[in-house]
Amino acid sequence: MMNGKLPKIWYGGDYNPEQWDRETWSEDHRMFKLAGIDVATINVFSWALDQPDEETYDFAWLDEQMDLLHAQGVGVCLATGTGAHPAWMAKRHPDVLRVDYQGRKRKFGGRHNSCPNSPTYRKHAAALAGRLADRYKDHPALLIWHISNEYGGYCYCDNCAAAFHGWLKDKYDTLDALNRAWNTRFWGHAFYDWDEIPVPNELSEEWGGHRSNFQGISLDYRRFQSDSLLACYKLEYDEVKARTPDIPVTTNLMGFYPALDYFEWAKHMDIVSWDNYPSLDTPASFTAMTHDLMRGLKSGQPFMLMEQTPSQQNWQPYNSLKRPGVMRLWSYQAVARGADTVMFFQLRRSVGACEKYHGAVIEHAGHENTRVFREVAELGRELGALGDALLDSRLESQVAIVYDWQNRWAIELSSGPSVALDYVNEVHKFYDALYKQHIAADMISVEEALDKYKVVIAPVLYMLRPGFAQKVEAFVAAGGTFVTTFFSGIVNENDIVTLGGYPGELRSVLGVWAEEIDALLPEQRNRIVMKNGRGALSGEYGCGILCDLIHAEGAEVVAEYGDDFYKGMPALTVNAFGQGRAWYVATSPDQAFMDDFIRTLVQDNGIETPIAAAPADLEATVRAKDGQRYLFLLNHAANEAEVDLGKSCGRDMLADEELSGRIAIAAKGVRIVKLSG
Amino acid sequence: MMNGKLPKIWYGGDYNPEQWDRETWSEDHRMFKLAGIDVATINVFSWALDQPDEETYDFAWLDEQMDLLHAQGVGVCLATGTGAHPAWMAKRHPDVLRVDYQGRKRKFGGRHNSCPNSPTYRKHAAALAGRLADRYKDHPALLIWHISNEYGGYCYCDNCAAAFHGWLKDKYDTLDALNRAWNTRFWGHAFYDWDEIPVPNELSEEWGGHRSNFQGISLDYRRFQSDSLLACYKLEYDEVKARTPDIPVTTNLMGFYPALDYFEWAKHMDIVSWDNYPSLDTPASFTAMTHDLMRGLKSGQPFMLMEQTPSQQNWQPYNSLKRPGVMRLWSYQAVARGADTVMFFQLRRSVGACEKYHGAVIEHAGHENTRVFREVAELGRELGALGDALLDSRLESQVAIVYDWQNRWAIELSSGPSVALDYVNEVHKFYDALYKQHIAADMISVEEALDKYKVVIAPVLYMLRPGFAQKVEAFVAAGGTFVTTFFSGIVNENDIVTLGGYPGELRSVLGVWAEEIDALLPEQRNRIVMKNGRGALSGEYGCGILCDLIHAEGAEVVAEYGDDFYKGMPALTVNAFGQGRAWYVATSPDQAFMDDFIRTLVQDNGIETPIAAAPADLEATVRAKDGQRYLFLLNHAANEAEVDLGKSCGRDMLADEELSGRIAIAAKGVRIVKLSG
Amino acid sequence: MMNGKLPKIWYGGDYNPEQWDRETWSEDHRMFKLAGIDVATINVFSWALDQPDEETYDFAWLDEQMDLLHAQGVGVCLATGTGAHPAWMAKRHPDVLRVDYQGRKRKFGGRHNSCPNSPTYRKHAAALAGRLADRYKDHPALLIWHISNEYGGYCYCDNCAAAFHGWLKDKYDTLDALNRAWNTRFWGHAFYDWDEIPVPNELSEEWGGHRSNFQGISLDYRRFQSDSLLACYKLEYDEVKARTPDIPVTTNLMGFYPALDYFEWAKHMDIVSWDNYPSLDTPASFTAMTHDLMRGLKSGQPFMLMEQTPSQQNWQPYNSLKRPGVMRLWSYQAVARGADTVMFFQLRRSVGACEKYHGAVIEHAGHENTRVFREVAELGRELGALGDALLDSRLESQVAIVYDWQNRWAIELSSGPSVALDYVNEVHKFYDALYKQHIAADMISVEEALDKYKVVIAPVLYMLRPGFAQKVEAFVAAGGTFVTTFFSGIVNENDIVTLGGYPGELRSVLGVWAEEIDALLPEQRNRIVMKNGRGALSGEYGCGILCDLIHAEGAEVVAEYGDDFYKGMPALTVNAFGQGRAWYVATSPDQAFMDDFIRTLVQDNGIETPIAAAPADLEATVRAKDGQRYLFLLNHAANEAEVDLGKSCGRDMLADEELSGRIAIAAKGVRIVKLSG
Repeated sequence: MMNGKLPKIWYGGDYNPEQWDRETWSEDHRMFKLAGIDVATINVFSWALDQPDEETYDFAWLDEQMDLLHAQGVGVCLATGTGAHPAWMAKRHPDVLRVDYQGRKRKFGGRHNSCPNSPTYRKHAAALAGRLADRYKDHPALLIWHISNEYGGYCYCDNCAAAFHGWLKDKYDTLDALNRAWNTRFWGHAFYDWDEIPVPNELSEEWGGHRSNFQGISLDYRRFQSDSLLACYKLEYDEVKARTPDIPVTTNLMGFYPALDYFEWAKHMDIVSWDNYPSLDTPASFTAMTHDLMRGLKSGQPFMLMEQTPSQQNWQPYNSLKRPGVMRLWSYQAVARGADTVMFFQLRRSVGACEKYHGAVIEHAGHENTRVFREVAELGRELGALGDALLDSRLESQVAIVYDWQNRWAIELSSGPSVALDYVNEVHKFYDALYKQHIAADMISVEEALDKYKVVIAPVLYMLRPGFAQKVEAFVAAGGTFVTTFFSGIVNENDIVTLGGYPGELRSVLGVWAEEIDALLPEQRNRIVMKNGRGALSGEYGCGILCDLIHAEGAEVVAEYGDDFYKGMPALTVNAFGQGRAWYVATSPDQAFMDDFIRTLVQDNGIETPIAAAPADLEATVRAKDGQRYLFLLNHAANEAEVDLGKSCGRDMLADEELSGRIAIAAKGVRIVKLSG
Repeated sequence: MMNGKLPKIWYGGDYNPEQWDRETWSEDHRMFKLAGIDVATINVFSWALDQPDEETYDFAWLDEQMDLLHAQGVGVCLATGTGAHPAWMAKRHPDVLRVDYQGRKRKFGGRHNSCPNSPTYRKHAAALAGRLADRYKDHPALLIWHISNEYGGYCYCDNCAAAFHGWLKDKYDTLDALNRAWNTRFWGHAFYDWDEIPVPNELSEEWGGHRSNFQGISLDYRRFQSDSLLACYKLEYDEVKARTPDIPVTTNLMGFYPALDYFEWAKHMDIVSWDNYPSLDTPASFTAMTHDLMRGLKSGQPFMLMEQTPSQQNWQPYNSLKRPGVMRLWSYQAVARGADTVMFFQLRRSVGACEKYHGAVIEHAGHENTRVFREVAELGRELGALGDALLDSRLESQVAIVYDWQNRWAIELSSGPSVALDYVNEVHKFYDALYKQHIAADMISVEEALDKYKVVIAPVLYMLRPGFAQKVEAFVAAGGTFVTTFFSGIVNENDIVTLGGYPGELRSVLGVWAEEIDALLPEQRNRIVMKNGRGALSGEYGCGILCDLIHAEGAEVVAEYGDDFYKGMPALTVNAFGQGRAWYVATSPDQAFMDDFIRTLVQDNGIETPIAAAPADLEATVRAKDGQRYLFLLNHAANEAEVDLGKSCGRDMLADEELSGRIAIAAKGVRIVKLSG
Repeated sequence: MMNGKLPKIWYGGDYNPEQWDRETWSEDHRMFKLAGIDVATINVFSWALDQPDEETYDFAWLDEQMDLLHAQGVGVCLATGTGAHPAWMAKRHPDVLRVDYQGRKRKFGGRHNSCPNSPTYRKHAAALAGRLADRYKDHPALLIWHISNEYGGYCYCDNCAAAFHGWLKDKYDTLDALNRAWNTRFWGHAFYDWDEIPVPNELSEEWGGHRSNFQGISLDYRRFQSDSLLACYKLEYDEVKARTPDIPVTTNLMGFYPALDYFEWAKHMDIVSWDNYPSLDTPASFTAMTHDLMRGLKSGQPFMLMEQTPSQQNWQPYNSLKRPGVMRLWSYQAVARGADTVMFFQLRRSVGACEKYHGAVIEHAGHENTRVFREVAELGRELGALGDALLDSRLESQVAIVYDWQNRWAIELSSGPSVALDYVNEVHKFYDALYKQHIAADMISVEEALDKYKVVIAPVLYMLRPGFAQKVEAFVAAGGTFVTTFFSGIVNENDIVTLGGYPGELRSVLGVWAEEIDALLPEQRNRIVMKNGRGALSGEYGCGILCDLIHAEGAEVVAEYGDDFYKGMPALTVNAFGQGRAWYVATSPDQAFMDDFIRTLVQDNGIETPIAAAPADLEATVRAKDGQRYLFLLNHAANEAEVDLGKSCGRDMLADEELSGRIAIAAKGVRIVKLSG
């Protein structure tokens, strides 16, 4: 998707020369060269500079920068600059300002500050994008378009209310249909006019960010706001695409960011890019899962690591330094999972305002004699040596995990059964077990084809979208293994319960009926007791949060509850359905269960792993291109690790040495093995 | 008070057929019959359906339901439907919308959403009630009126401000009187015009829900808002009463709900009804206390259990299932303490919106083959068999506990001495000791006659209403035993201190002077050290929160403090006054003290208990009618319990067996013993 | 500074006779005499009484009080009464009402309620002050003016916005200068018109009270609001000063109150006064430090203890009683550190509203037979006996600690590196070590001359004001010892980083470069490992929060880190610079390090202590006048303490006995020793 101007992993990041003088620019270029930097993202927050008033545009500074960077051999990721509107616009056209969740009209400030349904914002943002494209469409430095920046947040203003009513009319056609879809006869909510429908914030239906009196309204408002911001993106996309059809277009996403349905967004992006900001204590498997999700947005297509910090952040409570080697390790982790770029926020630390304590390639000290710069330059050298070998290579997985933003919204909005239920955490528990066993998994949407996988896992799939149950049935009937859990199959896409017995449309394929759902107090636990050993599963395991009280309706009962009045009822079942099997995990298990359960699935289904043996925190992936496979080995531990390559062997592209059998990997070390045969 | 149409304990609950189709109605009726259900509460949230616009009413659906239910032998608890206003009304008449504690005008949404001083709301609510009464006044299904639903919340809008000024004028007549009553010379608050008086919310005098700069204003605003909502209730009451003078009228209360003075409300209700929603970890004695409070609202008259869940709630953080037998146990607990109905929210679970995970008689599965339905049907059978034996029977108590909402408001609004002081908890500590010793206690208002009791306990009676001290003196002088505690008798009804020495007007009857009040840090404790053994009291006990530093002025010092600079000062005193005694507990004691103290009072005053011996969590009460006494034995424990009936004997009406001497009660089991002789 | 009308330590406090009747006044005067009270602060919250409407003033009550107090020999601290505006003013002129941090226009209520940029407030406040001065300028009771009360809080209204724009124009002259100073090219914040600049609250740039997107704006807004309130003070100051040039003027400050830069305020006050409200668990050294700060506001000039409670507060979560002797002890602590008055809030407890549970000389009991009154009267007797001996005596210190409100604002506003960093706590850690070693320290502003000190400590001096680094260099070059810590010297007064390497302008004098700053998670710790013993320092110590990764550039490395990847890097350095030395403490150490470090500095620099040996919680200070030195010995412990006077000897002015050698001091006891020779 990225054009061929840079035949290697792009290396660079956000750059704000407009904050600095000419002398500094020269120093920047000198250091870029030292670090092997070949791409700079510019103009991200320059709207106020590009357009000093409603009628005037001034791109002189940008012209100069484009030329300067090009002259230095640095390509440009050109932002459209609409991530924050100018102060003059807020003063002259208050419609650009949002109304917040508390119902307050905001004033100028911060970023993420434009109402997505503001006519002023839409008009001026599109105009700016168009003008930039007109001006730089033939500039040789232009590599890619970066639309706006980290879209996010919701607005609740009157313009949004009116647009919401229009969006609802398009969706439901009649108020009768809407009243039915939302069950508005509950609490006397029948609407007789579109204008009566409130935007759901603290002044009407919601509180606490994701508590709601009316899930249907709140769910549709999330869809509507995600769509509204996407429409803003698309306006700009169309402007630049019309002028530069061959230049790829992206906007930088934020991993599991809850407010936007990125699967819908990715449909309109040429390439996915994202900003990766783990903390010191973020599990490596969580970062891995996020990379996989970003890769899954476009069905496995390589993505851009658009931002990471070379050293520390500023906005976390405790902004730890990245330990020596960790920036390199985490950069390769991104590449190992599908990134074709390694980019930083930021190339030079700003001197004032709220991100001045965010790490940068060029620190406040201003020279190259820093630990951070040395590590950056060393990585730059390595990436240069790798050339285009890895570009556009793909990962292959036999396991998929279904993740759905709309399901997440529905779960979080649900009033009952338990505030302790955390969808992303439940997904991560499965992912983590796979990760520790070095099993590749794709993170997929509910729209993805299932038949390319041996095992599909859909944790807590509370909301079933239309047709998904049928897709699961076909997948299992054809021999696939499907896994789901407690609190799945409960509602349709409007959060309306599928009557007749949980898990609704999945009941047939799973062969179980969930009669009741018990929510455990924080101090309460239950036990999953195996009836017999089954694969790696044996003995008993802890569980909690929710316990479905299920009845087997054809499914085999593999484990039972060990306590409480539902002791002896099924806790784990598997159902033969056609040529395949469907598992139901009726409660939220401890990680120990999850590890053994995944081990069992791996054995049962002949899932392959790229290495014979390795510690759990040794991360291993394979990227492949044109028949050539590249094995990534990443040691997240503080000590040297040993890996058994088994039958594989090949050449370490970084250390430039041949490897086979049992090999060592240094603490925080990385190996990329070009596999033989 | 309830008319004679259902000569048995009513059994049924909230029913929302308007959310369902005809096919479902048939199924509902079939299952109602299976469950022995004979009452349905309907029209609770149907305002938007009953009145689709300002000029139009449409009761066709309600006509049909009234007839259908009657045809099936189900009586109707007919709600007036004004618990939530329609969306069209909010749009056309924004005066119905509240201004919240943060000072924000709300939009349409949720429930509890109408301003009680809105002219629109008052006009339309009364009109709807009147039309309903006109239409159904002669309908044979009509059993009782259910006005609105769970009145609650406050409003702070300009209409409320104006009404508050009127209310104050009525109360104080002159601004001079008001300025004196509130001590407005403090912090320069003298008012020269009624319009200058703010409504006390976060924009003026309050913060945190119950912190205030001016207790007098805040206290009167609570009274005013409670009165305003009561006025709304009375408007509807008058409309239906004028048309159906023989049909009882109620509205469903919420136990210890803090915002409304239910003692004032009950004066205007034909029968008290309430909604009982304990959590899995709510002490059984707390629920018992709440039933007793609801019974006490109308001086012991039987009440309605209007709502409880058959299985679980949706709005708690962790919505535990009611364990097998618990729904039955808690239903009989209500009856044991004065309920003449057992009713559920809800008969059928709704399919969408925020209460869809609230348990129901008919679950989402939709059929009778569920644990929940089986338990409901079994209880229905039992209640049918009990017939009218228990109806209108009364409890008798020799002990009373004074509880006062206005005192609670004053304590919570107090700036100092300690945020750790929790009035309801202090009340419960006394109640719990009585409960565990199987002693019946009435929860009474300060207006109740005291002379029918042997012992009257008034924990933390910080605010003394006019005349109450004199009533206590007369009670004690005539031989009664009065008990009060630290931080009592401090202020008058306007939160103005009674000068000259705490506990003010109670000083004479108690024979003590409280010179200072120490507030202990959370980690600080003191000790109550007995001077000699006294009844069951001996040795020493822990205490905390507040320690009054008192001097005996005629009272006998029974125990002293064991620590700190007030070691040796009195911690427990008793004063002989006339024929009786008055106790003062100068600090907040541990439960162990409370148990021994109550034991001592029981011994000293010859308080009777209905059974000879039983475990502490075996609940025992007696209801009596026409000389016949019914002993309720409820085993809240997880194991079988043994009870010694002593000289009592009789027939278990549920098990249909004769009982005497030592008997067993199953875990979560219930016995209702028709006592002999 | 205080005139000579009361030739002794003033004794009295806030008095609100307007809340009481004549009979009470007589009783008050009787008890004032018993207690030795000779000063009363009146008219503090009487604006609504003094000015019942816009055109009318009524001072009749005040005339009577002034005369009555004078007749009884009580002098008057006359408040101007503008601490809370009248309700009629709020109604008629809403511009007096503030807009709060959440962006909400407030209504009448509370106190601290006037917008400092309200034309109405300014006009009427100045007018009232002028009228009072006209009326009482020659009254014999008048001792001092008390302007308004406890100025505090910020406003965010449109009047403030306009005034802010004016203030900015005055400061920066051009928008170009402002845009540069704030680095507004960050996040597209370039301003093209002064009116575009937002007031930084939750609607624009801030959240959480001290989190900001733009530190420059937020920092200047704090300066502006501090200045705005100061301007209100000055308006009134000028009114009274013009009429009574010989009467001192003050306003009561609040110690470390964060919102106002008291060093700027003190320049406009004739004498500093402050309100001291420690909790039961406030360290005595923290109170001592606060007294020293208040004394430092005017470079050591004695101050007034304007308010303290005789017994308990009302507004703390847990309002403990002051233990017996503690009120006396803490009163003398104030005197020991420079107070020339001992005054209470309040002389008589009010009967209603939110301070009625705040202790008073005359309690609700109303008579003198209380513990509290007895202690007050005994202290009154002692103060009478002391006469004018101590008045205007001074403390002398060889050590100074730099404290800067603007630095505090900048640290608290900083986004990164750690939310755990607490400036005041870091300052207190140094102070506490000095306190426990009985070393006098001055708390000084960055404007104070340094050359009178041997050791100057500037903990976490993140922001360097212009010229301060040069002052430090001159001080050290001349032989002084300077100490600073991690996260110092980072930014200039606009929070713009000094480029080239931390600690910026201090780098030369310290001889270190701080390359990186690691922020530790709450559970993370590191160790300070001594390279060799150094004075009292030896072995190793714990540290945390932030760890600067520094390189010695000429400085001697005294200790190293013991853990993590920066193990072995310097943790403590000292640099020889000219005749002196500059220390750098690279991390936040445990108190054990601090104690040994201060011990080392004391030894190295020959710092004197007034006593030879004493326990750590025995507080010791010396005040001196005309060559006579007075040694204060305060025992904060619960047990008797022993002190070795060493070569000192003298007469205990309270016990009236000669002392020398080893002497005992009772628990909570006080000795004031008039030293011989």
